[in-house]
Amino acid sequence: MDKSGHSQHISQQYNEELEDVKRSLLEMGGRVEELLAEALAGIREGDSGIAEEVLKNDEPINQMESYIDEECARILARRQPAASDLRLVLAITRVSTDLERIGDEAGKIARQTIELSEAGRAPGGYTEIQHMGTSVRGMLHDALDAFARLDEELALTVARQDKQVDKYYGSAMRVVVSLMMEDPRGLSKMLNIMWALRSLERIGDHARNIAEHVIYLVKGKDVRHVGLKEMAKHVKK
Amino acid sequence: MDKSGHSQHISQQYNEELEDVKRSLLEMGGRVEELLAEALAGIREGDSGIAEEVLKNDEPINQMESYIDEECARILARRQPAASDLRLVLAITRVSTDLERIGDEAGKIARQTIELSEAGRAPGGYTEIQHMGTSVRGMLHDALDAFARLDEELALTVARQDKQVDKYYGSAMRVVVSLMMEDPRGLSKMLNIMWALRSLERIGDHARNIAEHVIYLVKGKDVRHVGLKEMAKHVKK
Repeated sequence: MDKSGHSQHISQQYNEELEDVKRSLLEMGGRVEELLAEALAGIREGDSGIAEEVLKNDEPINQMESYIDEECARILARRQPAASDLRLVLAITRVSTDLERIGDEAGKIARQTIELSEAGRAPGGYTEIQHMGTSVRGMLHDALDAFARLDEELALTVARQDKQVDKYYGSAMRVVVSLMMEDPRGLSKMLNIMWALRSLERIGDHARNIAEHVIYLVKGKDVRHVGLKEMAKHVKK
Repeated sequence: MDKSGHSQHISQQYNEELEDVKRSLLEMGGRVEELLAEALAGIREGDSGIAEEVLKNDEPINQMESYIDEECARILARRQPAASDLRLVLAITRVSTDLERIGDEAGKIARQTIELSEAGRAPGGYTEIQHMGTSVRGMLHDALDAFARLDEELALTVARQDKQVDKYYGSAMRVVVSLMMEDPRGLSKMLNIMWALRSLERIGDHARNIAEHVIYLVKGKDVRHVGLKEMAKHVKK
């Protein structure tokens, strides 16, 4: 396997089909990154206009997922790929599912923003959202980079970052709960903040999933249910 | 395609491989159903012992997912299935992912149970959990039945039930929030109830996903991002 992620074929057209679907996936990834950035700007500014845009822009992402899956099924049926080509096609369909879910979570953040723009600013939690938002944006970007460059070391870094994000999420939730207790009248606004934090935590999980698909692609090893230590062993092999 | 979900092949062994992986998936489904039933019994009784069992029993389910995915990749590589066989193999890997996620959500319910067993009974929300629990257990059972029998009508029913469950979830959340406001000292226990309800709502989504994979398998049509009306049209065709 060379750095294109698939073997070179006598059929030039087959090569192009694999390149095309890989390119579509990375384009979808770029769109999802933008959507997440917008969702975070929306909640930071309390701007329901941006949030409405996010909800509108989620639909083309769903269509991209369907297109990519159809292309992958077509390649499987017509080209009957083996070995690293087969892993590439399977990894692409899995990554597209995770990207679509990240788009959904960005939409959920937008919905919290719209509710908050009607109810008024929450008593707190914005710092925590921005902190987590920056982390998971970085993770998503690195996971997509790792996929584009077949960089299993970078994928491992993403999995490690997810552990940090989960830890930070735990402490952010404690802040949110104590704000709820201090000011029960601000409760439902703090619940909006809480759901947004939850969505960010889920986005971190999906970025980690993408990283795991990269390791599967490069190393041929399913690392979805192993710990970080064992994952690192497979990457170093 | 006959009712086994795949074409009959000259190679008896190939038929058996497809039957085997389908059987493994349904076995995994049965285990996940049991896990969900246990998780619901645990939170109803406030029994941390049952909850610990649920957490322990989630691990074999992860291993079943890995096994099923490996088998599917092996069949794709060696048998190069086409048409309905290809759809069957792709649907099986997707359903196994949803089942694994349902197992995760059952684990999350168990974690709420353990926290509640330490903090004491929550001020309310148990009726809502049981009501939603009964609905999503039914949906999961029907989705797996629809898969086993390639019954696209039953799959459509599951998708419709998900809409009801989402509606019920909305009203259950309003109950939870008003209980939080009435009794701020019970807040963190009500948050445990809230996360359990959220897990049940997610399980409903995964059951719906499984139903959508059944429609893809039988009708060859990706219905993941279409509304119920259009889904019904594809099923009746």
